[in-house]
Amino acid sequence: MQRVGFRLQIRPEMADEYARRHAEVWPDMLQALRETGWTNYSIYLDRADGTLFGYLETPDLEAAKAGMATREVNARWQADMAPFFLALDGKNPDEGFLLLEEVFHLN
Amino acid sequence: MQRVGFRLQIRPEMADEYARRHAEVWPDMLQALRETGWTNYSIYLDRADGTLFGYLETPDLEAAKAGMATREVNARWQADMAPFFLALDGKNPDEGFLLLEEVFHLN
Repeated sequence: MQRVGFRLQIRPEMADEYARRHAEVWPDMLQALRETGWTNYSIYLDRADGTLFGYLETPDLEAAKAGMATREVNARWQADMAPFFLALDGKNPDEGFLLLEEVFHLN
Repeated sequence: MQRVGFRLQIRPEMADEYARRHAEVWPDMLQALRETGWTNYSIYLDRADGTLFGYLETPDLEAAKAGMATREVNARWQADMAPFFLALDGKNPDEGFLLLEEVFHLN
């Protein structure tokens, strides 16, 4: 199992709305994530500056990302999320996230 | 089990040394963490700006923090780590970390 940490940046003024949307993620989006290997997946928000930190466990991150890239529900979800994000260089949020280096782990 | 995300800031120029130290955390520090309920604990580093993200699972975060606060090895470890950190307002790193809000979770 790979443990993955990533970072994204939303517009701080949209933090409330981002949190609201993520409290009600569409059931078919959740199902697509489950089916493509996204497990123990959490997103943390720092409302002070809009920093997001994601953590997930997956058998294979590249396969998990490739799997979601084929799902129509993901295209709709990412289109809905696009206005929240900053500095993604024209990429979709799920393509633009910055993978972080794990420097410590204790089981 | 509580899932905890937190954020800390190190001096970016000290990122290599921070990573090196965390690849060789003292065995008695690891043992103290285990004994006080820190599990599935990862630290991620963004070398671009020195942002650290921590993720852990624990039965009780307050008990886990209180437990470590009584350990002599933790006092020594935190004293060693103090020069790496920015903007901790005079607190030890383990007291100063910023807890993040979990806005999404998928099992």
